[in-house]
Amino acid sequence: MTRSEPAGATGLDTDIPPAHGVADGPNGRPADPSHGTLRPLGLGEVVITGGFLGHLQQRNRDASLAHIEYWLEREGWLGNFDAAVEGRLPEARRGREFADTEVYKLLEGLAWEFGRTHDPRINDKFKRIAVRVVAAQEADGYLNTNFGRPGQARRYSDLEWGHELYSFGHLIQAGVARARTVGEDDDFVRAVRRAADHVCEVFGPEGIQSVCGHPEIEPALVELYRVTGERRYLDQARLFVERRGHQVLDDIEYGRSYYQDDVPVRDANVLRGHAVRATYLSAGAVDVAVETEDEGLLQALRRQWDNTVAARTYITGGMGSRHQDEAFGEDFVLPADRAYSETCAGVGSLMFSWRLLLADGDSRYADLIERTLYNVIAASPSNDGRSFFYTNTLHQRELGTLPDPQQAVGRAASSLRAPWFGVSCCPTNLARTFASLAGYVATTDTTGVQLHQYAPAIMRTTLPDGRAVALETRTAYPRNGRIDVRILGDSVGTWTLSVRIPQWADGAEVIVNGDAQPVEPAGYARLARDFKPGDTVEILLPMNPRFTAADPRVDAARGCVAVERGPEVMCLESVDTPDRVHVDLLRLDEAAGPREVDGSVLVTMRTMTPPEMQGAWPYIRHSPVTTRKVSKAEGPRPAADEPTASQPAHDVVLRPYHTWGNRGPATMRVWLPVTAA
Amino acid sequence: MTRSEPAGATGLDTDIPPAHGVADGPNGRPADPSHGTLRPLGLGEVVITGGFLGHLQQRNRDASLAHIEYWLEREGWLGNFDAAVEGRLPEARRGREFADTEVYKLLEGLAWEFGRTHDPRINDKFKRIAVRVVAAQEADGYLNTNFGRPGQARRYSDLEWGHELYSFGHLIQAGVARARTVGEDDDFVRAVRRAADHVCEVFGPEGIQSVCGHPEIEPALVELYRVTGERRYLDQARLFVERRGHQVLDDIEYGRSYYQDDVPVRDANVLRGHAVRATYLSAGAVDVAVETEDEGLLQALRRQWDNTVAARTYITGGMGSRHQDEAFGEDFVLPADRAYSETCAGVGSLMFSWRLLLADGDSRYADLIERTLYNVIAASPSNDGRSFFYTNTLHQRELGTLPDPQQAVGRAASSLRAPWFGVSCCPTNLARTFASLAGYVATTDTTGVQLHQYAPAIMRTTLPDGRAVALETRTAYPRNGRIDVRILGDSVGTWTLSVRIPQWADGAEVIVNGDAQPVEPAGYARLARDFKPGDTVEILLPMNPRFTAADPRVDAARGCVAVERGPEVMCLESVDTPDRVHVDLLRLDEAAGPREVDGSVLVTMRTMTPPEMQGAWPYIRHSPVTTRKVSKAEGPRPAADEPTASQPAHDVVLRPYHTWGNRGPATMRVWLPVTAA
Repeated sequence: MTRSEPAGATGLDTDIPPAHGVADGPNGRPADPSHGTLRPLGLGEVVITGGFLGHLQQRNRDASLAHIEYWLEREGWLGNFDAAVEGRLPEARRGREFADTEVYKLLEGLAWEFGRTHDPRINDKFKRIAVRVVAAQEADGYLNTNFGRPGQARRYSDLEWGHELYSFGHLIQAGVARARTVGEDDDFVRAVRRAADHVCEVFGPEGIQSVCGHPEIEPALVELYRVTGERRYLDQARLFVERRGHQVLDDIEYGRSYYQDDVPVRDANVLRGHAVRATYLSAGAVDVAVETEDEGLLQALRRQWDNTVAARTYITGGMGSRHQDEAFGEDFVLPADRAYSETCAGVGSLMFSWRLLLADGDSRYADLIERTLYNVIAASPSNDGRSFFYTNTLHQRELGTLPDPQQAVGRAASSLRAPWFGVSCCPTNLARTFASLAGYVATTDTTGVQLHQYAPAIMRTTLPDGRAVALETRTAYPRNGRIDVRILGDSVGTWTLSVRIPQWADGAEVIVNGDAQPVEPAGYARLARDFKPGDTVEILLPMNPRFTAADPRVDAARGCVAVERGPEVMCLESVDTPDRVHVDLLRLDEAAGPREVDGSVLVTMRTMTPPEMQGAWPYIRHSPVTTRKVSKAEGPRPAADEPTASQPAHDVVLRPYHTWGNRGPATMRVWLPVTAA
Repeated sequence: MTRSEPAGATGLDTDIPPAHGVADGPNGRPADPSHGTLRPLGLGEVVITGGFLGHLQQRNRDASLAHIEYWLEREGWLGNFDAAVEGRLPEARRGREFADTEVYKLLEGLAWEFGRTHDPRINDKFKRIAVRVVAAQEADGYLNTNFGRPGQARRYSDLEWGHELYSFGHLIQAGVARARTVGEDDDFVRAVRRAADHVCEVFGPEGIQSVCGHPEIEPALVELYRVTGERRYLDQARLFVERRGHQVLDDIEYGRSYYQDDVPVRDANVLRGHAVRATYLSAGAVDVAVETEDEGLLQALRRQWDNTVAARTYITGGMGSRHQDEAFGEDFVLPADRAYSETCAGVGSLMFSWRLLLADGDSRYADLIERTLYNVIAASPSNDGRSFFYTNTLHQRELGTLPDPQQAVGRAASSLRAPWFGVSCCPTNLARTFASLAGYVATTDTTGVQLHQYAPAIMRTTLPDGRAVALETRTAYPRNGRIDVRILGDSVGTWTLSVRIPQWADGAEVIVNGDAQPVEPAGYARLARDFKPGDTVEILLPMNPRFTAADPRVDAARGCVAVERGPEVMCLESVDTPDRVHVDLLRLDEAAGPREVDGSVLVTMRTMTPPEMQGAWPYIRHSPVTTRKVSKAEGPRPAADEPTASQPAHDVVLRPYHTWGNRGPATMRVWLPVTAA
């Protein structure tokens, strides 16, 4: 690479941050295990300077954080804390039982944002909100605006649905983010420790022998242990993980699998029940397994990840197919119709996969993170960062209605992005994720540095042996597949740069200082050498669009293919169809193949004649064909109304799924039925 | 036909009942419109003597009615009425807010059962229960064990979810059944009229300007009008129908479409929202339209039926695809996975279609009734009549667990039939339907008699001009497709016997006294002649099993065919597969065709090798095939693991869907993927 041929604009002018020490002081890591194959680089070590991921973090900063604060004030969820201080509860309480957590997730997002940018205005905002929250904390450390006061339900009287420990979990995560960005000497961090101490007292070995209906306290307590070194928090997290699955919670309509209280974590084979609960619990259980060096538990979680990815995950990386209980379906029940694929489950999946990646260093975890990041997490916010998908369907059959930008909607009622929800976990979950995105890009180990996600970035760190390394990446990824890495001035001696070759990137090339290197498909290309300042590594990932078919047991995708391009799943949106025809009336001519022309992904499609509908029974007698020649390539015959090769074909543009729904009401589909020709 | 060659055993010895008058006295009709193309024959006019439908009514009598009474006592839902009398409410109240209605539906079932059999023990049982119910009625006619007492919610304080008018509706339906089987001079009927009068006072033109969140009062009031001639009931029903759809109820998470309060009935194009609510409302709206001769309203309901059948109905006739809100999905969202297809929605569909059939005489309505009867309503009860499907999925992926016969389960939690449910509407709905089955078999009009459903039966009625006609049907239908009709002794003069040729019965034959008659496909074969006693009509419906494909917009059935045989949808159950292999691993060889051998329906299938699963990403790169010859018959290429013609084929037995799940836990599917050969 030469600087005169940049791979892509870096977008933002950003100061190169100073390298932080590894163990001392705030390290800005979203998760920070003390054991494991890989050590993450935190926000102090990686600065994303632009590109796709940079845009996500910048829009979060420019629009979403303020949007969220506005809605938290407007809906009175922030005001609940003031009402608690002023003795106006329970009358003045607003929002659902877990409304406090949206404030905590905003605080966590602000903490990471300050850690990333060092912008004092962000810090002021954090402190102003944190003061209101901490003011409502009770003398014994308890903090919840929905329980325990006269006229409210007793503390911990409804572990199944009360979300009290879940709320403490998010409070603690905000404290962890604060400690990892400004240090432990902070009023909010002290308040969080008091809360954690309270939890350990009440739910410790001699305390209430139960768990929360919504996991989250588990990863939070381990992370607080990692920050503080206080073993009690780890022990409590382990207790929570071990208790669950022994029917300590009441049975409910959805069954105890809903909150993973059906089978102990170490005995389960696959994620099940509520997808956010399942992924949060799994993340916390990995944390416990890693810190307690419990290989049996860790192995159970690897197995669950494997089986979940193999049979219970959408092509987008989305998890959870059921609306009713926001839950995983049975194996291969992955309908595109009404795919739930909750945004928060995407965040939970990221948390789970990231922890396994740090533990094992297996690129498959980073592959799923990439897929989920581009096709679930990035799909949720609107172009302006002020409305959000709560669910991420893969098939929109009816033209949706644009929600009123001044009106909150039911959690999954909207077919288009909405500004706020009655249950509004997703916007705040995105905020904390986008603000900490730089923490998921790269790691180190004893050999050197690993690049997991590609974005324009500058990275400075020290290897375990104390050597400082620094590098810069430039790329327009995923607009194109070229990533240029340049070794910066202070890199010295032999070390290994490992760059992820995504599972989809057959034919990837890696070129070091102009010399092509051997590349194994999928995994890490490991480049060990005595890097010199100015050395360049060029990674070329093939971005030609490709067809993808589903496992034959995914009934909902039979006879269909999806189109992917790099890490992006593409979709067909009716605003791009000829005459804005309903997407369900188009059939893909697979023979033509997907192709990229002038930056657009094109496929060839034919429009089918809609069958006569009025009053017609939609099930048609189907005659077995006994006379036609049997060939391996033949599938089921088309129904009478399917288009054939004799009908005119036209080029149709597909766009990244994460962009859909930004151009007004549209029908949309990811899985494209293949035409009979 | 000769008596020495019976088409099938009649099963039961039953006395031929006396012919009832048309207008006078109890006529035993489940619905009794005063206008319309067809006049139904009631339980006093049709006796089902055996066969498939006879088995359903006999098992209901022998097992289900007592089973239901047992559970109503055991769960305390019957005891709620005693508790009301004894002042033990609300403390002693048991069950959901609508638990009273299960008692009412049992009463309705008992009323029809007494009307059918004249068994005094059934009458005694009816009276013993009715006395307990009526004792709880308040002075002003109000009757509900869940509202209005100190400590309970106020009457009509929760129209959205309280189900008070829904409960009155089922109470009234029980009263209508009683009046139509013993006459109006009955204490229970008088109590029901007091209740109906109360409803009219409270919700009349000057009263509460709203409706109930769950329709049912609408058909009930019209039916009571038909029994009593009291116009006030019809007017009130019309008011309820006209009010709905004008946002008179609160908005809820599922939207007002859940209870059809989104669009006025006369403006709606398709059924939507909660499927039981939608079908009950539609039935009542047809009743109002017919009695008020409101052609515009009737036309709206025909249109809604048409569009619902064309795009929102399972091949089984099942309605409602969503678990979350027990609701219709959008057009063509008919996944076999977790198909909801609530048993009660099948009953509601029967009510709706029967009323349109009576209004219009169009055989399509009778076709859907047959389909729903054989594949939803008959599918719900177990072989022993003591456990039930609440939902009727078309695809069971996991081996279910047999519910404890002494334990009620969540409404849709069970994958196998359960003895009782927390919401137990389905068993009682079946009971009233099976007891009145004979009322859905035949009608008269000015030309003669129409046979809509085929069962061994004896029918006696009078035509509008006063002539008595009688006939007997003998058949083993659907075991075979032959129905023998014999004109009985007291038939005189020229009249028309119309026999339904089902939509699926291409090639049906009708033979009168040995002479083949011309038969149009689908509709009624109309045989006008001067029938003499002993004349015979032989109906031969082709019962060879057939393949059926779905509209190409039903994504969930793409690349699959179903097998049907006569009115029965067939299914593949793992207990019938080689080595009990999971049904999802079998592929159908369509070239071999379905066939019947020794009474079993066979297809040819190949077992596919399950793809490697552990940790495997289930989405596979799919290369477009550009070299193979393009032919009309080609569909999408099979995925790598699909079996081909080179793999061994074996015969596999399919059985009627309504029998599935009676042989222990099994996987099951209706839609069979077609193999690539």
